[in-house]
Amino acid sequence: MNTTRNKRLLDGMETVAQYLARKLHALGARHLFGVPGDFSLSLLDSVLETGLLEWVGSPNELNAGYAADAYARTRGIGALVTTFGVGELSALNAVAGAYAENVPLVQITGAPATTRDGMLLHHTLGDGDFTHFARAYAEVTAAGAILTHDDPCARIDEVLQTAVDEQRPVYLVVPADVALTEAQCGATTVVSDAENDSRGSTLRFSAAVRALLGSAQSAAVIAGHLVERTRSQGVFGALVSALDSPVVTLSSGRGAIDSTHPRFAGVYIGGIGAKRAQLAVETADVLIEVGTLMADAVTGMFSHRDDPAHTIHLGVRTARVAGREYAVPFADALRILTELATPLPRELPDVPAAGPVVGETLDQDTLWATLERLLPAGSRLVTDIGTTFWGAAGITLPAGVDVVAQPVWSSIGYALPATLGCALAAPERRPVLVIGDGAAQMTVQELGTLARHANPVIVVVDNSGYTIERALQSPQAVYNDVAAWDWTALARAFAPGIDLRTAAPSTPDELATELSAALADDRMAVLHVRLDALDVPAGLRALADRHRR
Amino acid sequence: MNTTRNKRLLDGMETVAQYLARKLHALGARHLFGVPGDFSLSLLDSVLETGLLEWVGSPNELNAGYAADAYARTRGIGALVTTFGVGELSALNAVAGAYAENVPLVQITGAPATTRDGMLLHHTLGDGDFTHFARAYAEVTAAGAILTHDDPCARIDEVLQTAVDEQRPVYLVVPADVALTEAQCGATTVVSDAENDSRGSTLRFSAAVRALLGSAQSAAVIAGHLVERTRSQGVFGALVSALDSPVVTLSSGRGAIDSTHPRFAGVYIGGIGAKRAQLAVETADVLIEVGTLMADAVTGMFSHRDDPAHTIHLGVRTARVAGREYAVPFADALRILTELATPLPRELPDVPAAGPVVGETLDQDTLWATLERLLPAGSRLVTDIGTTFWGAAGITLPAGVDVVAQPVWSSIGYALPATLGCALAAPERRPVLVIGDGAAQMTVQELGTLARHANPVIVVVDNSGYTIERALQSPQAVYNDVAAWDWTALARAFAPGIDLRTAAPSTPDELATELSAALADDRMAVLHVRLDALDVPAGLRALADRHRR
Repeated sequence: MNTTRNKRLLDGMETVAQYLARKLHALGARHLFGVPGDFSLSLLDSVLETGLLEWVGSPNELNAGYAADAYARTRGIGALVTTFGVGELSALNAVAGAYAENVPLVQITGAPATTRDGMLLHHTLGDGDFTHFARAYAEVTAAGAILTHDDPCARIDEVLQTAVDEQRPVYLVVPADVALTEAQCGATTVVSDAENDSRGSTLRFSAAVRALLGSAQSAAVIAGHLVERTRSQGVFGALVSALDSPVVTLSSGRGAIDSTHPRFAGVYIGGIGAKRAQLAVETADVLIEVGTLMADAVTGMFSHRDDPAHTIHLGVRTARVAGREYAVPFADALRILTELATPLPRELPDVPAAGPVVGETLDQDTLWATLERLLPAGSRLVTDIGTTFWGAAGITLPAGVDVVAQPVWSSIGYALPATLGCALAAPERRPVLVIGDGAAQMTVQELGTLARHANPVIVVVDNSGYTIERALQSPQAVYNDVAAWDWTALARAFAPGIDLRTAAPSTPDELATELSAALADDRMAVLHVRLDALDVPAGLRALADRHRR
Repeated sequence: MNTTRNKRLLDGMETVAQYLARKLHALGARHLFGVPGDFSLSLLDSVLETGLLEWVGSPNELNAGYAADAYARTRGIGALVTTFGVGELSALNAVAGAYAENVPLVQITGAPATTRDGMLLHHTLGDGDFTHFARAYAEVTAAGAILTHDDPCARIDEVLQTAVDEQRPVYLVVPADVALTEAQCGATTVVSDAENDSRGSTLRFSAAVRALLGSAQSAAVIAGHLVERTRSQGVFGALVSALDSPVVTLSSGRGAIDSTHPRFAGVYIGGIGAKRAQLAVETADVLIEVGTLMADAVTGMFSHRDDPAHTIHLGVRTARVAGREYAVPFADALRILTELATPLPRELPDVPAAGPVVGETLDQDTLWATLERLLPAGSRLVTDIGTTFWGAAGITLPAGVDVVAQPVWSSIGYALPATLGCALAAPERRPVLVIGDGAAQMTVQELGTLARHANPVIVVVDNSGYTIERALQSPQAVYNDVAAWDWTALARAFAPGIDLRTAAPSTPDELATELSAALADDRMAVLHVRLDALDVPAGLRALADRHRR
């Protein structure tokens, strides 16, 4: 097999693996995340020969998947290579998260050569059926293919096109022999489904928008995650300018618009978010939901205004206007809406945001007030889904700062590897990770990878366990306690020979001093901040109250 | 919901969750592994109220799954509780491993209340379909059920029965409301399939065994993993005594018989294992395969004697004799075979085992020769599947020592959490974990859990990456390099306040001294042993040679 490969490379022939690498590169990928395994070695050797993609090895596949997810959110594509069975199944949670959160993540499985199909190989269930894992993946991906010698390039094109069209993860199985086959590819013309029969839908959508907007005296725009995911902030800004209406974001879509924008009215979390944002939404004649998904946590347990008759909603593949659905994909719908938008200005009373304030002891309020004051413009705030997401939801962000998190899928541990993906995808935007100890324990080994590749500022919020669960149901349950770890010593032990900044501030002043110093320092920083086990940000307290009703 | 629960507990009523706990306890479980999540809190609260099962929280679900797998191997049952979606999918790899390796592991998912089915909840894909993950699980489990209010106890009984009958993992989804429902269970009579129509099969099997053994002058017994998995060492010993034939084990079934047994002829790995074992197998008239699975790695890439016409094979549900299959389950087949066995004694020439010897520098041979000399009788050797499994395969084990590993599924990282499962399942047998650095990086956070619950001796073999892959295909590939970590500092940072023994021996003498001291000391010990990146045990070198052919 080695001989075959080397011969092919000498011939200057492009392999299927290299074709895949070239396509990923064309879509924006510059790195490849994953963990090697014996069934993926030929694939990796061939891909890396191209020099198009840099290998970023992670200690395990779940972490690699999270990193690739955050990378894909930023660059429009991310790819993950794992081995068959053991590797790909470990990444399944990360890929499912990409599905729930509309992330075009490409999971690539290196599989046994087609000549070995059905054999009693390791990394199989021992039953000769090599398709179990593809069926598991079919549940959490928008498209997938087990490549064979029958036109693998066309299959690659189709699957990648779906990732982009649907903003969803996809799955490619590349058997070791297929990886090294010559890529004999015609000029594949992939016709996006969206182009079929789109003219009629577009016309009907336009008419419905005109009718609804024409009957309205006021509007409110609600930005969801798809604005960022599709990198549509520019068009979205044009829509907001054309409408001149108040704009709110969901907690899942804060990067859609700067909080310094004159029309920005706050983060809308149904009945528990900013009062000014509630006012904007509740009093508008028409709601314009741009790329939103109204899931429980981002709506304050469904306490949002749910009013289809007065709503324009833009989703990935379809738009809805006054309760009717039109097959118009997101980018087209956003463009049309912007073209049709006429001014619906409205002044809202100036309800001051009740953000956190620095107290006398180091608590959640102090932490988030300090972050609010010190976060640099243009940085990225990465949070996990426990208390830290809710702390972030309660502060006003400086210009150019977005929040990277997983509020729909809500898999704790995501944020730590996601910080790696963010840092590699946009090196000029330094990530600030704020993560609870329960979450960080899930994926802690990625600290070592981070130290080698990036220089994030990391705040570990140590409240001795799963405080979000304590808030929601079981304040005293033993299962919510996690082991105490020495976080600063851990960070150093994961990165011997790398100069890190570590500190464990224990007062509000120390926190401000250490956070300022970390942000002014180029080294990766780990701050270990101990908080009370039952201390939660205001937003989470409100959510828990609704949850218990 | 809390009110309802408390009322029920006060009434002394048994909930469905408690029924499940009672059944698991009856099957041998005393601990419950997992990670809590909001959809599993009611379930956990109710289960833990019984006092029957002790909660063992892990930092993440994959680790918890591995721990529960090793526990189930030892006690005949192991259970894992995770939350819906994010939790259960992270454990899928561990559960698939249990399938491949015949481990009766029960994966229990705490799910949203049935009243919330289809809602846009977190931990779902956002499409209203709550059955995606059950279908993924169906690919890697022998049975499963999504419990409803319709006779949940009967469903629990059926699923647990399958785990035991099939020696495979099973899957139970317990919605939060069903967990707290009263368990109204009749005296369920579960009739094992094995009892149906078994008489005819048994008679035909017996006749076939008599015929094949009657025609033979000699036999060799090959023990596989099922002997240990079904805790059948006693009957197996009786079979060996009755036959008086040479016995070998696969590398996956070494706990079947002591290496001090007079009939033991070594570890059989096809053409690359012990010469005396090969001789025993190659020259016998009849092969008696007791609970074997002839997968690639344990057969030296299928270099074993594959001779159905002269083989009796006992599997989980069926036995094969001279190429014909009989529906006789393992325990019955083993008992019948033992009753029918007549002496077929045979003396083999005394081919000395070519085990590793201590050299002048600290290398693989020195490491394994030292372990061979110092491993205490009755301890358990836990290895991962890289170089360490092959090192273990090349040594003679002291009496009462088994090897816990995953040679079929071969998921690296398994061994570290598995050590936790071993320690809790059989506290009187101290585990000695030998694990490569690439493997240990996968699941390293379990060091903290281990330190709190047990006192294993841990040898981290640091060869800077995935040396098994370097041996198989890509000796110089960058993707096989992992980050350097400070393993002794890490162990301490994961366990602040717990007194550990740590050392980094760098010569053969230091290794012997430190290992002896660690074995004589009650504290958990972590020895960081640095070896050359391309140094491999002899068995792995032989395997790689066959792999490259």
